[in-house]
Amino acid sequence: MPIHRWIIPKGYLSAEEKGVLSEKITDIYEGVGLPRFYVVVFFVELEGHDFYYGGKPAKSFVRIDVEHIARNFGDAPVAAKKEFLDKYEAVIEPWIKGRGVDWEVQIKDICDRDLWHENGRSPPAIGSVEETIWKKENRPVPDDELAAIKATL
Amino acid sequence: MPIHRWIIPKGYLSAEEKGVLSEKITDIYEGVGLPRFYVVVFFVELEGHDFYYGGKPAKSFVRIDVEHIARNFGDAPVAAKKEFLDKYEAVIEPWIKGRGVDWEVQIKDICDRDLWHENGRSPPAIGSVEETIWKKENRPVPDDELAAIKATL
Amino acid sequence: MPIHRWIIPKGYLSAEEKGVLSEKITDIYEGVGLPRFYVVVFFVELEGHDFYYGGKPAKSFVRIDVEHIARNFGDAPVAAKKEFLDKYEAVIEPWIKGRGVDWEVQIKDICDRDLWHENGRSPPAIGSVEETIWKKENRPVPDDELAAIKATL
Repeated sequence: MPIHRWIIPKGYLSAEEKGVLSEKITDIYEGVGLPRFYVVVFFVELEGHDFYYGGKPAKSFVRIDVEHIARNFGDAPVAAKKEFLDKYEAVIEPWIKGRGVDWEVQIKDICDRDLWHENGRSPPAIGSVEETIWKKENRPVPDDELAAIKATL
Repeated sequence: MPIHRWIIPKGYLSAEEKGVLSEKITDIYEGVGLPRFYVVVFFVELEGHDFYYGGKPAKSFVRIDVEHIARNFGDAPVAAKKEFLDKYEAVIEPWIKGRGVDWEVQIKDICDRDLWHENGRSPPAIGSVEETIWKKENRPVPDDELAAIKATL
Repeated sequence: MPIHRWIIPKGYLSAEEKGVLSEKITDIYEGVGLPRFYVVVFFVELEGHDFYYGGKPAKSFVRIDVEHIARNFGDAPVAAKKEFLDKYEAVIEPWIKGRGVDWEVQIKDICDRDLWHENGRSPPAIGSVEETIWKKENRPVPDDELAAIKATL
């Protein structure tokens, strides 16, 4: 987590564009302290007969669904949420607004870290040394390795 | 939002049937005051080896997942929820119960409007003049246009 | 419900493996008292250009998304959540950890039973005689049949 699901009309984005977009979305979270590998992005391409916007085939509409878990807004003020949404909109702009389609973004603040595992274990606490190591290594570092790295700090 | 995800066995519905179903689902929400374009419906067709119901290939089972955001039940009484579910069941009946399959409907009451954007901006407040204009125009009317329309009211 | 969505790299699991995995996941819930048919499992296979992990094509990464509704953790202690996650991890181990991929499991505790229908009706209350009959029959037994069965108990 976070996980971003992009539902797009068939053929709307090229493989290369998806790659660039995924990198840029990942950058947002790395910028606020998350390990890059926490970020999952996937694209679902649908034909007009499988995707409807207002009851009509969605041929120029993109639906973006985001779920947060590693970090949550919780009781954060509305301004913090707007700031994040606006940052996200700015990042995706060239592929979305810039092309004249309609689009919708929804972020779901899913929040139980106790129901989340990476490679079979609970991710380290927010702001912990362990999390910093996971971030630096960019992988779910196993406990024994983690202990060894901590011993060298 | 709302967004309806229908997971169906491969080939269960024709393109035409999907279109009709999407229109009828959209009608429900228009009937309670939402702009039609708020409603997104999409179909995911799966082969038996990718879709399981009780551990067996789901060849005559339909899974319907609904997420609400533009309007929520919140603290509404159970009766209001049942009423909505029953209305929904009545609408989809010809394609579902009427064909003898098993099916499951689940509505998720996702509720943070501050984490929702249409075409890069927060949708207007529930019951506002702006929302009425969005509904009438059936599109996310940009702010400048919205001001111009309001000036003529 | 529960519903398990497995997002996997294209071709990662065979049809047979998916079947076995679905049965074993279903077993977990049957073991804690749920009717087997409550459990829905589906697999989404994605190409590397449609699925990203840390901004890179997810060629050896599996994303497992679980939603609970028939039973919820609610205020259960963290230990109960860990216990369930660990049980789940043990069940999927041969297809996941045993093959050296990276993976993520997230359980969402979706909890409004009043917004859930099986075959057009609200499922019986937890622990009720009716639920026991649904479990034994392994299908959403209609009310009239349910009354007939109860009369024989």
